[in-house]
Amino acid sequence: METLGMIINFIAVLLLIRPPLPLGSKTQHFKWEVGYAFRSPDCVEGLVMGINGQFPGPTIRAEAGDTLHVELTNRLHTEGVVIHWHGIRQFGTPWADGTASVSQCAINPGETFVYRFKVDKAGTHFYHGHYGMQRSAGLYGSLIVDVAEGEKEPFDYDGEFSLLLSDWWHQSVHEQEVGLSSMPFRWIGEPQSLLINGRGQYTCSFASSFIVAGSNTTAGRGRQCQFLGHEECAPQILPVLPNRTYRLRLASATSLASLNFAVASHKLVVVEADGNYVQPFAVDDLDIYSGETYSVLLTTDQNPAANYFISAGVRGRQPNTTQALTILNYKPNPPFKPPPLPPPVTPRWDDFDRSKRFSLKIHALAGRSPKPPMKSNRQIVLLNTQNTVNGLLRWSINNISLALPATPYLGSIKFRLKHAFDGAPPPETFLANYDLMRPLANPNSTIGSRVYRLRLNSTVDVVLQNANAMKENVSEIHPWHLHGHDFWVLGYGEGRFVAAEAERHFNLEDPPLKNTAVVYPYGWTAIRFVADNPGAWAFHCHVEAHLHMGMGVVFAEGVDRVRGIPVEAIACGSTAKMRMASNDERGQELTRD
Amino acid sequence: METLGMIINFIAVLLLIRPPLPLGSKTQHFKWEVGYAFRSPDCVEGLVMGINGQFPGPTIRAEAGDTLHVELTNRLHTEGVVIHWHGIRQFGTPWADGTASVSQCAINPGETFVYRFKVDKAGTHFYHGHYGMQRSAGLYGSLIVDVAEGEKEPFDYDGEFSLLLSDWWHQSVHEQEVGLSSMPFRWIGEPQSLLINGRGQYTCSFASSFIVAGSNTTAGRGRQCQFLGHEECAPQILPVLPNRTYRLRLASATSLASLNFAVASHKLVVVEADGNYVQPFAVDDLDIYSGETYSVLLTTDQNPAANYFISAGVRGRQPNTTQALTILNYKPNPPFKPPPLPPPVTPRWDDFDRSKRFSLKIHALAGRSPKPPMKSNRQIVLLNTQNTVNGLLRWSINNISLALPATPYLGSIKFRLKHAFDGAPPPETFLANYDLMRPLANPNSTIGSRVYRLRLNSTVDVVLQNANAMKENVSEIHPWHLHGHDFWVLGYGEGRFVAAEAERHFNLEDPPLKNTAVVYPYGWTAIRFVADNPGAWAFHCHVEAHLHMGMGVVFAEGVDRVRGIPVEAIACGSTAKMRMASNDERGQELTRD
Repeated sequence: METLGMIINFIAVLLLIRPPLPLGSKTQHFKWEVGYAFRSPDCVEGLVMGINGQFPGPTIRAEAGDTLHVELTNRLHTEGVVIHWHGIRQFGTPWADGTASVSQCAINPGETFVYRFKVDKAGTHFYHGHYGMQRSAGLYGSLIVDVAEGEKEPFDYDGEFSLLLSDWWHQSVHEQEVGLSSMPFRWIGEPQSLLINGRGQYTCSFASSFIVAGSNTTAGRGRQCQFLGHEECAPQILPVLPNRTYRLRLASATSLASLNFAVASHKLVVVEADGNYVQPFAVDDLDIYSGETYSVLLTTDQNPAANYFISAGVRGRQPNTTQALTILNYKPNPPFKPPPLPPPVTPRWDDFDRSKRFSLKIHALAGRSPKPPMKSNRQIVLLNTQNTVNGLLRWSINNISLALPATPYLGSIKFRLKHAFDGAPPPETFLANYDLMRPLANPNSTIGSRVYRLRLNSTVDVVLQNANAMKENVSEIHPWHLHGHDFWVLGYGEGRFVAAEAERHFNLEDPPLKNTAVVYPYGWTAIRFVADNPGAWAFHCHVEAHLHMGMGVVFAEGVDRVRGIPVEAIACGSTAKMRMASNDERGQELTRD
Repeated sequence: METLGMIINFIAVLLLIRPPLPLGSKTQHFKWEVGYAFRSPDCVEGLVMGINGQFPGPTIRAEAGDTLHVELTNRLHTEGVVIHWHGIRQFGTPWADGTASVSQCAINPGETFVYRFKVDKAGTHFYHGHYGMQRSAGLYGSLIVDVAEGEKEPFDYDGEFSLLLSDWWHQSVHEQEVGLSSMPFRWIGEPQSLLINGRGQYTCSFASSFIVAGSNTTAGRGRQCQFLGHEECAPQILPVLPNRTYRLRLASATSLASLNFAVASHKLVVVEADGNYVQPFAVDDLDIYSGETYSVLLTTDQNPAANYFISAGVRGRQPNTTQALTILNYKPNPPFKPPPLPPPVTPRWDDFDRSKRFSLKIHALAGRSPKPPMKSNRQIVLLNTQNTVNGLLRWSINNISLALPATPYLGSIKFRLKHAFDGAPPPETFLANYDLMRPLANPNSTIGSRVYRLRLNSTVDVVLQNANAMKENVSEIHPWHLHGHDFWVLGYGEGRFVAAEAERHFNLEDPPLKNTAVVYPYGWTAIRFVADNPGAWAFHCHVEAHLHMGMGVVFAEGVDRVRGIPVEAIACGSTAKMRMASNDERGQELTRD
């Protein structure tokens, strides 16, 4: 029985290692149904939101230049749904970005929406729900784009694994959403489990022999897991041969957790970040924030008689969740042969200097990335503050807490609807005398739906400015994700961003291109991008609860140039009403007698 | 502290007793927001779906002839919502019936829909969610229509109370829905608690001194409740004066439970059923099925030194839920003064003869109700069977299990859309050789969305035919509710309905007018109505889980005559697409390049 499980596991993983043969066709078709199912992702049963009965959703494997055609049917009973293709820029198809209230109407139960878009360059990506907190419900999967036939990656490897990292709560997403919007406020708390490819262990540990009293570095509950391999919460083992090089594709779909990833006794060479090549550098572990992806190369140069633990542990917040674990299984050892060495120790959660040192190691690979324009046309400084609005705890950006409108921006901007959102321009910066180091003296903020209108093809600098939260001496980490664009990360700094001083130290030589960047406690992060993609695009903290609490903004550029919005993308709210109330005979009939 | 609670309780109930003064205006305006909140309806905390923070929703009190104008805003995060005004016929406003997929599109999060309709006659009604299983989530409230100024009821009373009865689960509605749609099937089980006006006691009983071993007639968990009166799960006490007559308005919003209602030591005189006057008759207790309402008169003719238990207990299914209890509080006794007598004993759950005897006592009040036409133009026999469809457990009607389409019937019929639902006529009856007394030999059935098209102003007989379910020797009770009409209940019978025989015994003299009628195990129930209300109308089992599993049909009559459908009611699905794809310039732009 155990042998059978092992074989199945091995075959399953082999399928993951080998990319399918190049497809003759350049368009790939998928028929997906989103629905809930009862599953035990961490050995505890609950509802998960899956696709075609799978959790995580099916892995998409494409080649650069392919067109993906995903017919998504909503099989939920009362909830809308959308899917965001995280890292895909959607040039020419802004309605396919899958962001409710921004790029499209939520797909109603029973309805089908076609996501059709081109994956224009190779990279490690993922996809996930982007309505309410449905990502937290488990609506995510991997999206891997290989180089086009005949093209070559700037590094070699013998095999690869995709590891999609996430965090998991036992409380339902509806309870989480309501708690966050309640008076008194109810925080979601730390996750019960961390998952690797949708698998974790809450009720047992398969490294229990290494549990150190008072330590959170090994998984908890004391009991040793007994897996045959086919269990829903059995870790997915990574089978490798000695003296080979493997590419690990990491993606973090976490709702909250910043993670540190490591493989015991093995170096990791970072070669890709957010779908862009970076100058290779070796590390013992790496930090990965929600919304980020990395590729690392691992060489199986250790004692092949042993297996080794692979771990992901919480950083950036005081951890209360055991590490996610799986095994690097040197064949022909049995997959579950206990590693003789303990799992890697996750670095201290609040050693932010260590985290910053890692961030600063990331540079674009020369010759494989465009360089940033030397100057920007506009600088927008976004101060994040924790506020109360009408008694509710919220996050605000320049004193406005984002509340997404019922009508998606793409349609309401395109058709110049007056009342679908607040048309006033949001603030470009914050007050010069604002004290970043203390809680707000007067925390009252407003709810808003304003849009930063960007001139098409202009170069925009955005500075994320962190500050003290509501509580004294607390400033949190926020990973910000930009839709529709990659951006260059020009620099990180401490305290207040002072342009004249900071800009002298901007990295304009080899800044990494990313779509997600973190702002450290009490610090700032400066990014630059070219607003060259007509559409409406969210830019937001990728912590699901923080976005729910208003931590985001919306950019829009060249929307008047957008052509071909499918009717289904805007068949709701004010755009539906405006376009349905035409003047033909039927229209007359529809107005009240 | 106790005294304060008692006073507050007393004042609160006084407010319920006294109808507000007649309004100068004939239109009442309400602004409602639907949202989830954490509450403890039965002393156990969970999410409830409420209105303006209230659970149950606010009571509406109107006069016959009033127009209600309810601006309903959806404050849920990802779920649509509608509200059905149960018992209101919606003459001329079929889009205001609040039935998702039938009369309107679900209202999306952040959107507002205006329900504007006339309450044309006096009666005891309620309102509730009608999308997915949102009624089970707690979305319901009372709707009481008094006689118009100058009119008189055909009975007298000194005061009144509204008692809205419901059942409550600790499992979330989402889990319930998914379980019912899963393979293997997961039944919701019996409710954890029964609630009176949203209040029950799961963790304690306030009649614990009467608990009899092995009996389910008194509330459980053994522990005596200690209430001050202000607790969310404290029962709402009914304060009365001796030697007065009170009207108790009962409405059952249960998801599953058939209930028996009684007041210890007191007779109940039934005077109203489903908003129609009936010939008064006295009983010790009455059965009330989901979807039904009754008014009973109670005279406080018992020993005024005591309080008395009021109870509602489960019938029709093997009960596993303790009685709902509250107190008839003869003033000046303290409200929580323990009654010396035990709560009423709920009659045996499977004594269906007793239930039928009660049903047969209900007759229309002479001179206050229209009589039925002596003949019908059409007879539709609806056999209900429990089936499997593609491995899923479903309920079917004449072998079709209802799956509601994404586009509401009202719009798709009005605009003659070809593919919004299955246009074929559903079967008028079932096979003559079908064996009602056994499980189906071949239980395969189909999912469908067909509509019974009724000729406007024709008289239609519908026979509900019960049968054996999937399990041997099981046939369940089903209370069927008709939207948009009252119907006459012409008769009940055992076994197979044989028209020639049965019709000779139809009550055409004084059949009660109702909107909900029960069909007993292995029996049939015959109803008659005039299809005089242009619109599309659901007719379905009011057991929430059964409707979810397909137990319903749709009637439509005179839809071509419907004028003035508000655009918001049909701004989804195929009606939105059809009407948005007009030929003007903008329309051109919206089609794909």
